[in-house]
Amino acid sequence: MTIKADVPAIAPFDHAKLDRLMDAAGIDILVATSKHNVQYLLGGYKFIFFAAMDAIGHSRYLPVLVYEKGRPDHAAYVGNRMEGGEHANRPFWTPAFHAAAWGTVDAATLAADHIRKIARPGARIGIEPPFLPSDAHGVLDRLGNSAELVDATSVFERLRAVKTPEELDKLRAASELITDSMLATVEWAREGTTKAEIIERLRREETKRGLHFEYCLLTLGPSHNRATSPQAWKPGEVLSIDSGGNFHGYIGDLCRMGVLGEPDAELQDLLAEIDAVQQAAFSRVRAGALGGELIAAGETALKASPSAAFTDFFAHGMGLISHEAPFLMTNHPVAYEGVDAAHPLEAGMVLSVETTMLHPTRGFIKLEDTLAVTESGYEMFGERGRGWIRGGV
Amino acid sequence: MTIKADVPAIAPFDHAKLDRLMDAAGIDILVATSKHNVQYLLGGYKFIFFAAMDAIGHSRYLPVLVYEKGRPDHAAYVGNRMEGGEHANRPFWTPAFHAAAWGTVDAATLAADHIRKIARPGARIGIEPPFLPSDAHGVLDRLGNSAELVDATSVFERLRAVKTPEELDKLRAASELITDSMLATVEWAREGTTKAEIIERLRREETKRGLHFEYCLLTLGPSHNRATSPQAWKPGEVLSIDSGGNFHGYIGDLCRMGVLGEPDAELQDLLAEIDAVQQAAFSRVRAGALGGELIAAGETALKASPSAAFTDFFAHGMGLISHEAPFLMTNHPVAYEGVDAAHPLEAGMVLSVETTMLHPTRGFIKLEDTLAVTESGYEMFGERGRGWIRGGV
Repeated sequence: MTIKADVPAIAPFDHAKLDRLMDAAGIDILVATSKHNVQYLLGGYKFIFFAAMDAIGHSRYLPVLVYEKGRPDHAAYVGNRMEGGEHANRPFWTPAFHAAAWGTVDAATLAADHIRKIARPGARIGIEPPFLPSDAHGVLDRLGNSAELVDATSVFERLRAVKTPEELDKLRAASELITDSMLATVEWAREGTTKAEIIERLRREETKRGLHFEYCLLTLGPSHNRATSPQAWKPGEVLSIDSGGNFHGYIGDLCRMGVLGEPDAELQDLLAEIDAVQQAAFSRVRAGALGGELIAAGETALKASPSAAFTDFFAHGMGLISHEAPFLMTNHPVAYEGVDAAHPLEAGMVLSVETTMLHPTRGFIKLEDTLAVTESGYEMFGERGRGWIRGGV
Repeated sequence: MTIKADVPAIAPFDHAKLDRLMDAAGIDILVATSKHNVQYLLGGYKFIFFAAMDAIGHSRYLPVLVYEKGRPDHAAYVGNRMEGGEHANRPFWTPAFHAAAWGTVDAATLAADHIRKIARPGARIGIEPPFLPSDAHGVLDRLGNSAELVDATSVFERLRAVKTPEELDKLRAASELITDSMLATVEWAREGTTKAEIIERLRREETKRGLHFEYCLLTLGPSHNRATSPQAWKPGEVLSIDSGGNFHGYIGDLCRMGVLGEPDAELQDLLAEIDAVQQAAFSRVRAGALGGELIAAGETALKASPSAAFTDFFAHGMGLISHEAPFLMTNHPVAYEGVDAAHPLEAGMVLSVETTMLHPTRGFIKLEDTLAVTESGYEMFGERGRGWIRGGV
């Protein structure tokens, strides 16, 4: 355990905002155990050893950040034993740091020991249920002193909803680099290139630009199947390429369209239809507009579109994870109950807007774009390659 | 829900072995929720969309595989809604497949519904506590019918301990490609190259060879700090490069040594000391030898070594995760209680053997090697670059 008693505890996030959110939710102490929320509360840090996986030995890595409302000086970070080297190079801001855990139970036990030192009787402890393993939950459930565990997911979501300029820079870079990677990949692919080869090529194009590749969903020709396969690209066929990759943890997630040859008039029209829906939604984006306004605009434009019967419109916030606040949709298979539709958008929120056409003969045709909300409108990240990208050039 | 009633349920793993392990542990139904065990039980499949992350929306991806002892025909896989495309291209072997979940609770609910159909009263349900989120655990805890949840971690560990020829091919490829990547990276690095640049270079070298990079722990010069930093390589300094990357999920994890210039006599001696410990351990590896024999041989050789006071010897099984069965060590900070030390090694087990010297003036000097146990001895994977690799060539 390391105590930096001589250094003031300066939280690298808006802790006054977090305190307000905790107060509104009736939470006294937060216990972050997801990689994304721990990264957020640690000011962008993620431990490389477990960035790509969790499992080791009989258990798994479980980073735990404990934050007491209004008391950054009581914060603690419980990391893996190997994280002492990270701390030596770039100290964690939390006054207490325990680089002592190897699995879930020992990490939770160290966190519980810390909480017992700071918690008042009957304290409400905010946890992340989907990211707190059952055995670690069992440890926190035995905190004693009438402590109560409550779901703090929405507190974290609200905290992260408005991005700082530094976060916007990372999100912009992610989108720009994904655009570059997609353009390079589609232009490289030619007749006979398989889905598996295109996906692997995109992974390498993203990696060499400094991105961390996450996934690629790809279709070729009339198919709507986005999974990898040995299917090969044929002349005249469309290609849809949807990929997520992150830049220092911040996600880029775009979809672009390719064609092997020249797009015919029907393809030009179909992509124009999709873009019209996108633009209708974009036109309502500005700080102060209700989230529901952009949804209504996109849905209205879609309803007027010839391909409405087989086209879907969807929008969601994004940042450290691929669907996050603001949650805008209702009446959609991935709806998240649209809790933010009735609230004004704020400058610094980042939105992903996607229109997806499952065309019965031409295939999967989609655009997905990323917008940062500004006072006067929006800034699009990765605003290139939105027309038909020619393959095999 | 998809039922392939016309296709026999052929498990892509040794289900008779799994049935025996479950019987010995008194487990009726297994519920796998870790990515590595789901991948194993699905014959090597991992869903690309969530391979690099888990979080989406308010929750996270939770793949769930349900297996009843002796009844492959009762097995079910609960995946994300997007996994239908994967199934269409390469069908899951489980007779039941639910591509219907989006988060932890809906996935667990679908799994619980399936279990209720097949479980006898009082069934013992084997779970993975570190990989079962607390809210999903809550769903399974309400199965009813006197079902009892028990820890099945060791059943999975035993099942995976002996690798198939196909798994050995992947582990061999991972080690060989990491060796190639390390040689290329160290030879590329020169005076002034920083730790951050070397780590990023290795990530790209691994990626372009088809590996999925996981981490790189790096030291330069006399430092023992393996975390990233702007520290630059200087003439005459050593470099230790320890990296994990996976090939189709199977881990390569090696450590090699570089030097900027020619290694002096002391460096040659120090690496020879380390290699002597490694070779002493290797010499005891063969099917039928007790796991503890190789540990004793390594520890005995280390004790006789001039640098014993600041050198550590460690060995562990590896495969889909970086420390797994056989668990060989006792009396070590990462000991896992050495449950396999008293048991014979089996052909097809894969071992990682590492000797780490924290030299007070020359720096961090380490070799980590991977061996597959064979009937007559062992095969080393990635058996190159074990001397001093010259940087800046």
